[in-house]
Amino acid sequence: MCEKCETGVEILTRNGEGRRNFLRGGAAVAAAPLAAAGFSGSRAAAQPSDALAQSEVQAWAARDTDGTFAPYTITRREARPKDVVIDIMYSSICHSDIHTYKGDWGMPNFPLVPGHEMVGRVVGVGSEVTKFREGDIAGVGTMVDSCGECVNCLADREQNCLNGTTFTYDSPDQVSGGVTYGGYSKRIVVTEDFVLRIPPGVDLAGFAPLLCAGITTFSPINHWDLKPGQRYGVIGMGGLGHLAVKLGAAKGAEVVVFTTSQDKLEDARSFGASEAYLWSDEEGLRSQMASFDLMLSTVPVAYPMQQFLNMLKLDKTLVNVGALFPVEGAHGMMMGFGRQSLAGSMTGGIAETQRVIDFAAHHGVAATYEMITPDQIGEACERVVNRQARYRYVIDMTAA
Amino acid sequence: MCEKCETGVEILTRNGEGRRNFLRGGAAVAAAPLAAAGFSGSRAAAQPSDALAQSEVQAWAARDTDGTFAPYTITRREARPKDVVIDIMYSSICHSDIHTYKGDWGMPNFPLVPGHEMVGRVVGVGSEVTKFREGDIAGVGTMVDSCGECVNCLADREQNCLNGTTFTYDSPDQVSGGVTYGGYSKRIVVTEDFVLRIPPGVDLAGFAPLLCAGITTFSPINHWDLKPGQRYGVIGMGGLGHLAVKLGAAKGAEVVVFTTSQDKLEDARSFGASEAYLWSDEEGLRSQMASFDLMLSTVPVAYPMQQFLNMLKLDKTLVNVGALFPVEGAHGMMMGFGRQSLAGSMTGGIAETQRVIDFAAHHGVAATYEMITPDQIGEACERVVNRQARYRYVIDMTAA
Repeated sequence: MCEKCETGVEILTRNGEGRRNFLRGGAAVAAAPLAAAGFSGSRAAAQPSDALAQSEVQAWAARDTDGTFAPYTITRREARPKDVVIDIMYSSICHSDIHTYKGDWGMPNFPLVPGHEMVGRVVGVGSEVTKFREGDIAGVGTMVDSCGECVNCLADREQNCLNGTTFTYDSPDQVSGGVTYGGYSKRIVVTEDFVLRIPPGVDLAGFAPLLCAGITTFSPINHWDLKPGQRYGVIGMGGLGHLAVKLGAAKGAEVVVFTTSQDKLEDARSFGASEAYLWSDEEGLRSQMASFDLMLSTVPVAYPMQQFLNMLKLDKTLVNVGALFPVEGAHGMMMGFGRQSLAGSMTGGIAETQRVIDFAAHHGVAATYEMITPDQIGEACERVVNRQARYRYVIDMTAA
Repeated sequence: MCEKCETGVEILTRNGEGRRNFLRGGAAVAAAPLAAAGFSGSRAAAQPSDALAQSEVQAWAARDTDGTFAPYTITRREARPKDVVIDIMYSSICHSDIHTYKGDWGMPNFPLVPGHEMVGRVVGVGSEVTKFREGDIAGVGTMVDSCGECVNCLADREQNCLNGTTFTYDSPDQVSGGVTYGGYSKRIVVTEDFVLRIPPGVDLAGFAPLLCAGITTFSPINHWDLKPGQRYGVIGMGGLGHLAVKLGAAKGAEVVVFTTSQDKLEDARSFGASEAYLWSDEEGLRSQMASFDLMLSTVPVAYPMQQFLNMLKLDKTLVNVGALFPVEGAHGMMMGFGRQSLAGSMTGGIAETQRVIDFAAHHGVAATYEMITPDQIGEACERVVNRQARYRYVIDMTAA
């Protein structure tokens, strides 16, 4: 499939290529302008020798399930030959970070340094790194390593690595033997296969949320093959949902939003939705029955889903990417009658994450955000829980 | 798509033909041997004139939610020009019949005459009937009418008629103005588009259950495109489940059964399963993790489903055709991790019902059943609820 219409960069989207070839191809394109601008080809000479050394790094850690954040010094490893050292500029707050420190998905290791949406500047690369150079802008998302050899990794599904994905935070770290620390910190060291290229000229802070919220909402659009003109329902419009709207609209779909916040109705239209309804608008909801080709639920808590499943056309799917809890309120008979499906989806592979970044750059999509400083993390998390975020909090890591 | 390999009757499976053309095409094939055998082409002369008249018919009705069955006389309408009059020979007990009289899905109209799996002999046809002749063997399933003109009817989805499907029993009867009466009776009058052809030479009693249990389990196999060699899990092996096993095996799939009844393990293998496990066999269940291309849940009550969703490969679907109640035990995070789906499915269209009948005839598949007389209906229903049916009770309507 040629995806030229999506990204304008054909080499990025050839099917049948493995993840590593894909990224190498992309890197060659991305590096070209830098080389033309006189960027040094000699890596060893261009980078400060201490960038590759083990370093003590300022981070912000949750100390307990109440989300009490405090500065915390972590150790980032010495760069191995394939490692990229990134000084983090922007790191955004994902609701998953909050679920994690609250223990909603099991008790985390404290101190916990969350953060799996980050953009920064490459300050050093190992001797065998081929895709990045010092000075590049790079991103890191939900994963930092996997085996790279199992059938799932080879199918660009590193999040399903059969030998165990290393997630970006609070995940067993195969290198250090401890647990991983995420993007609420000033530096990260990641093997190059898990580092994303950020195209020049984009809003870097607005691109950080693409690394999780972007891929999480884009991946179902791809997998269930949302087409221009099709009706696409987005349930909940927070951090995930507002990107679901923007990306769906950029795909040419007719986007309809269902929100519980009155003030988001107008925002939904500004993000590209053609219609927006409050959940309490019974008549409005009734008007949408049996009308959608695809729906995406981005609500971060469980809620009765059947009323939205009823909005699907025959044989169509509602994809839940937000409520990572027991499913509530789906009904066997009602789903059976129209042969509808309730699917789960979570993040996406590295190649697909690069694809959403390139797609967003091409279509001028980025997150809508409020910038905060690291000392405001705890307060911002509270506001996320209280549905006051508009629409992502981005932590300015250069401010501390 | 050519389905010649399935049925050997190519004309039955051309895509893109409407339901009515499909059935006409099929009927021409089916009628040919009868004509060659000297069957009269003159319908008016061949049928007794009283067969078309309104008639008082012996039926068996549930009188209350306890399932107290008693003889009950119903009126079958005078045949309209497109109606087929069928004297029912065999009618089988579907768990839906029991859910209905128990009021599990809302209070039914009593006296209730259930039954939507029936095979009988055509004893009269209206003047405009083209697909059946007196003497033909015919079947009736879950529906007896729909508008025939809406987008769903035209797509062979009469069960989703936008103007209201007329189901075979306890459904508003657009002709009489009352409610419909089903197959626990000695005669039924149905418009020809909802009458199925039963091929010659098959076990008629064993074919009755195909009219609901057969199409209900075959339709997901078609829709989710189960292929030879793929791993297909069947959860629950009662009336639906045992046909799911036989049909899946006939498709060439590797069928694995999960049952709660020890004595069904051996039966599963005799029906074509390659493996069978008790739900209580934790080690056996663990061995099946992430291994299925498709699963079908035929259990008629709600139960925790996530343990079976975990048995799907990435991106695959578990189709629930049995538990027509609120979904239990599906988990957003676990479904999301492997991008699995939980789908509903219920019965199938008329063309697809004909397809399963022809497929079953071609592959020598029929239900395994115990024959009963009408006075045993109540007792048989009890045994179905107590999981004692092996595997369908077929009521011999000629015995009363």
